[in-house]
Amino acid sequence: MMAARFDRIALIGIGLIGSSIAHDIRAEGLAGHVAISTRSAGTLKRAEELGLGDSYHASAAEAVRDADLVVVSVPVGASGAVAAEIAPHLKTGAILTDVGSTKASVIAQMAPHVPPGVHFIAGHPIAGTEHSGPDAGFAGLFRGRWCILTPLPEADRDAVARLRAFWEALGSRVDEMDPAHHDKVLAIVSHLPHIIAYNIVGTADDLETVTESEVIKYSASGFRDFTRLAASDPTMWRDVCLHNKDAILEMLARFSEDLAYLQRAIRWGDGEKLFDLFTRTRAIRRSIVEAGQDTGLPDFGRHAGDAKG
Amino acid sequence: MMAARFDRIALIGIGLIGSSIAHDIRAEGLAGHVAISTRSAGTLKRAEELGLGDSYHASAAEAVRDADLVVVSVPVGASGAVAAEIAPHLKTGAILTDVGSTKASVIAQMAPHVPPGVHFIAGHPIAGTEHSGPDAGFAGLFRGRWCILTPLPEADRDAVARLRAFWEALGSRVDEMDPAHHDKVLAIVSHLPHIIAYNIVGTADDLETVTESEVIKYSASGFRDFTRLAASDPTMWRDVCLHNKDAILEMLARFSEDLAYLQRAIRWGDGEKLFDLFTRTRAIRRSIVEAGQDTGLPDFGRHAGDAKG
Repeated sequence: MMAARFDRIALIGIGLIGSSIAHDIRAEGLAGHVAISTRSAGTLKRAEELGLGDSYHASAAEAVRDADLVVVSVPVGASGAVAAEIAPHLKTGAILTDVGSTKASVIAQMAPHVPPGVHFIAGHPIAGTEHSGPDAGFAGLFRGRWCILTPLPEADRDAVARLRAFWEALGSRVDEMDPAHHDKVLAIVSHLPHIIAYNIVGTADDLETVTESEVIKYSASGFRDFTRLAASDPTMWRDVCLHNKDAILEMLARFSEDLAYLQRAIRWGDGEKLFDLFTRTRAIRRSIVEAGQDTGLPDFGRHAGDAKG
Repeated sequence: MMAARFDRIALIGIGLIGSSIAHDIRAEGLAGHVAISTRSAGTLKRAEELGLGDSYHASAAEAVRDADLVVVSVPVGASGAVAAEIAPHLKTGAILTDVGSTKASVIAQMAPHVPPGVHFIAGHPIAGTEHSGPDAGFAGLFRGRWCILTPLPEADRDAVARLRAFWEALGSRVDEMDPAHHDKVLAIVSHLPHIIAYNIVGTADDLETVTESEVIKYSASGFRDFTRLAASDPTMWRDVCLHNKDAILEMLARFSEDLAYLQRAIRWGDGEKLFDLFTRTRAIRRSIVEAGQDTGLPDFGRHAGDAKG
């Protein structure tokens, strides 16, 4: 097996994902030195208080110097600026990767800056929570989750294998995918769900006939599930919407078309159509639980928490 | 405080809600005798194997004889037929209630059959999981959750107080509401979320460009949350759609209008509009957690389970 350890790792951006990687690097002993940089002075200070790395740098250019692996974990809209800033300082032979939720846009933003001899391999760990910032990270976030790498056709296979080994050491399973296909897949499994969740919470918030207090009190009947996704980082999700526009608009069009069909079945009292759809969707839930991608406990296992609370 | 105990309780329908009530009645010692009836012979047998009651009846009419409290827990479309069947056999002074997710329709279906001297008070415990059937029930399902009663203006206040005490003994907090208002509130906090969840899971299932296996593998990025609601009982949800049509269509229209606005912001790259919405929705999540209606643990606390699994 390929060694997952690097002498020096630079983490650019230290929010939920960056800090979780930092926790895992420490727990698994994957680096000789971890250099951390982030744009906000307050966040950098907090990362230092949490002891997430070995050195802390206001300048990303300084943090990447001599690093063998550079992981950029910033909102996707900031990828280009970060790449431009760090590119001249990257070591020959270094691996440069990211964790952004859109891949074609990130590659378009970063690749032009990457100097020859640096291995740029874009990536996306399919993991997260609704919390954000350096305090939200924890060891084990990536365990059992998939990480998708989208190397360019000309990528160095040895560098891809090293990056794969790194993610595997964090407990992830690794897939490789074409960036455009990644963006289509994520549009349906992640971007559309978040957009829909944000939208329904907004709709509920705007009602005149139902008060906000009623929405909150009775939210355990379904609504509360959507509020979790709708509590995700606004900057991250604004950037996702702006940088995966085409795939998201395609999925939104299909969703709305299907919803119009369902709405018509409700209006005309077509119970059979409703029953058919409501039966078909059960099978997918079962497959997700069987694939180990969700708990099979009723209600996500929340009732155990309720009883304690 | 009003006594929550009844000499004889009849449970008509013994799915997730009926069986959870049965568990709680036993745990809290709320009945001298529990008579159970359900339409399916197989389910009735299973209820007996689970020891959910004291007597088991193929005939609902027989089960309600001499009962002081009758709880009807059937899909809302079956409410009228059940009321017609049991009405002639209800004891004078008995309280008749239900647990259906729509209230105006249930009252319209049941009230005409209720004989004088029987106290009909429709109700709706705001609790459940995505599982169904008598094996899905458990003691404590209603703890900390709200139960909405929708008594008619002429309802006997003493009977309402006794039913309220019963739900409080199950750990619920009890609200009273006008049936039409209940249906509007539930349309936004429960019915719309379920319909949207069913719809998005259907959309994902129909894609040609993204495989079902990809949807399942990468579902932890958001999609899996929707599959839980979309795994709920199809008969129950078909009936909800058919019996709360007007309120659901109103909420669907608002949702679609808001989604078109959001879609337009994505198409035109209006990051400010997106950021504003995505920020506003965070506050609602916080209020729900503060109100004790959801866990504040990241990712519904699922990561603890992942680590164990």
